[in-house]
Amino acid sequence: MIPTKGYAVADAKTDLAPWNFERREVGPHDVQFDIQFCGVCHSDLHQIKDDWGGAIYPMVPGHEIVGKVIKVGSHVKKFKTGDLAGTGCLVDSCRTCENCQEGLEQFCANGSTATYNALEQDGKTPTYGGYSNTIVVHEDFVLHVSDKLDLAAVAPLLCAGITTYSPLKHWKVGKGHKLAVLGLGGLGHMAVKFGVAFGAEVTVLSTSPDKEADAKKLGAHKFIVTKDAEQLKSAAGYFDFILDTVSAPHDLNLYLSLLRTNGVHICVGVPPTPYEIHAFSLIGGRKSLAGSLIGGLPETQEMLDYCAEHGIVSEIEMIDIKNINDAYDRMVKGDVRYRFVIDMATL
Amino acid sequence: MIPTKGYAVADAKTDLAPWNFERREVGPHDVQFDIQFCGVCHSDLHQIKDDWGGAIYPMVPGHEIVGKVIKVGSHVKKFKTGDLAGTGCLVDSCRTCENCQEGLEQFCANGSTATYNALEQDGKTPTYGGYSNTIVVHEDFVLHVSDKLDLAAVAPLLCAGITTYSPLKHWKVGKGHKLAVLGLGGLGHMAVKFGVAFGAEVTVLSTSPDKEADAKKLGAHKFIVTKDAEQLKSAAGYFDFILDTVSAPHDLNLYLSLLRTNGVHICVGVPPTPYEIHAFSLIGGRKSLAGSLIGGLPETQEMLDYCAEHGIVSEIEMIDIKNINDAYDRMVKGDVRYRFVIDMATL
Repeated sequence: MIPTKGYAVADAKTDLAPWNFERREVGPHDVQFDIQFCGVCHSDLHQIKDDWGGAIYPMVPGHEIVGKVIKVGSHVKKFKTGDLAGTGCLVDSCRTCENCQEGLEQFCANGSTATYNALEQDGKTPTYGGYSNTIVVHEDFVLHVSDKLDLAAVAPLLCAGITTYSPLKHWKVGKGHKLAVLGLGGLGHMAVKFGVAFGAEVTVLSTSPDKEADAKKLGAHKFIVTKDAEQLKSAAGYFDFILDTVSAPHDLNLYLSLLRTNGVHICVGVPPTPYEIHAFSLIGGRKSLAGSLIGGLPETQEMLDYCAEHGIVSEIEMIDIKNINDAYDRMVKGDVRYRFVIDMATL
Repeated sequence: MIPTKGYAVADAKTDLAPWNFERREVGPHDVQFDIQFCGVCHSDLHQIKDDWGGAIYPMVPGHEIVGKVIKVGSHVKKFKTGDLAGTGCLVDSCRTCENCQEGLEQFCANGSTATYNALEQDGKTPTYGGYSNTIVVHEDFVLHVSDKLDLAAVAPLLCAGITTYSPLKHWKVGKGHKLAVLGLGGLGHMAVKFGVAFGAEVTVLSTSPDKEADAKKLGAHKFIVTKDAEQLKSAAGYFDFILDTVSAPHDLNLYLSLLRTNGVHICVGVPPTPYEIHAFSLIGGRKSLAGSLIGGLPETQEMLDYCAEHGIVSEIEMIDIKNINDAYDRMVKGDVRYRFVIDMATL
């Protein structure tokens, strides 16, 4: 077993603190890479607090992981020592179901294995995430990372990036489309970058008027303050797509009214309470409300390659791991532009 | 003005009763046709009770109207005296907005004119529906009806038919697809007929086990009693599409779990309370919840032509108009297989 240093919580009530644990030895198809940077996703906080149930403690969060390969198994073909590597939200899946066969491992019919707070496919070994110094992952769930980009700023692409890239690609959002991005946070700022790169007219819908300058700097063409009823009303029936990154409760009927005929509202955030949808909000204008969850491995690699080609990374604020609990407090207040990334050298 | 006999309610609390009123003279682009049959739609009851607000009294319901042309205006090109004719839920729209231009008059950006309980495009003249002996409609909103089909059984195609035909066509439901029809009533039984005709494998989801024989007779391949948790569980992740015709409150999360990856749940019923949707119900499997509303004029004509070609009509129970209030009572109890049609000769 490989001795590993990380940060973990012991239960839902304690803060993250240093914890030593072990990773499996590098198997024939495994890649071991030392973690240089790990992004801080809002879901990390949900998970350590057991907001979604089923928490496995001790828990080492982190699923926006990048670093350098230090060892590969005897049968590994895709990686060699010294390569840059990344791992996102998944470290395994059944590989045999229809979804896995199609490269949609995030929808594995038999249950994919999340990078942390989950069990390996053996059904008993817990997984531990990227708030740690090293990780061992089957090569099929390791991504190639380009050396053209700032590695720290690549880390959030593994979750925030693919979570927004995938639905925009799936619904073929691009030139000629009017895209609204609801919420300008870790996910939203990536959605703006991708929407603009794909050629759509991008409008940021935000509760915070002070984010307008930032939105424009990120490439957004328009900005609407959602608390301003007049501004919202003027956008009625305007958008082809709304990419909804908000995980706080909000009234979708209001936003559905901003869609034109056949418009699609795509949710990638998970509010704690159910959405309340009036049937007329969908029926009038043949509108759709859809959900999207990260992306499969092939699409995640495609996204990373696209980002390397187009110079797209996340906007980040680097932190030392000892400040992670303060960073969570600031994240909850929305006081981060736009993603915290842990410098794992500080571990 | 044209003296007209019909049945109307005076307010939300009274029953339907005979009422004499006037229709406009036949204008240059108008078609007047004598109504032979009018279907009874569940929304007729919602409207006379003002369940959706904005009721205009006296109200003559009815939007599944068929009969024979008795007079045409001087500029009418599409109809001549003696033709069979039909009118559905719409009698006019702005004709200039993008949706109207695309033949999606039901989504007219400036407000289409419903066949009853609405105002003409002049913004002041109330419209009166098909529970009456004659009607005057602009030729663009009159449909051709084939003489190959039982005319009485054609009437419900004008609402129940197009409401189910349109979404199945829009989402290209057909061969290779597994379609669930939720609710086997006026809409549901038409959805089964169209789904089967389009080549899909059709499963009826119903609370009533005693509808299984009927469902099979209508062409359904499978039947699931939704109150049987085991039966439902066995269908998890099975369907490509669910066409939801239920207008009573129901838990969509349950049905969304029956969809496979990328599945679409299409609502055509309007429950009185909002749907409560957990974000995870959509995000897991990239599912969509959509709405659909009747169909535009070109598609309604296409549907009628398709029905004539394939011998598709509604299953009906004919009633005398004096029994309409009893028919409503029976409709509320689900005691109709599957659509009441008023024989207007009894007026």
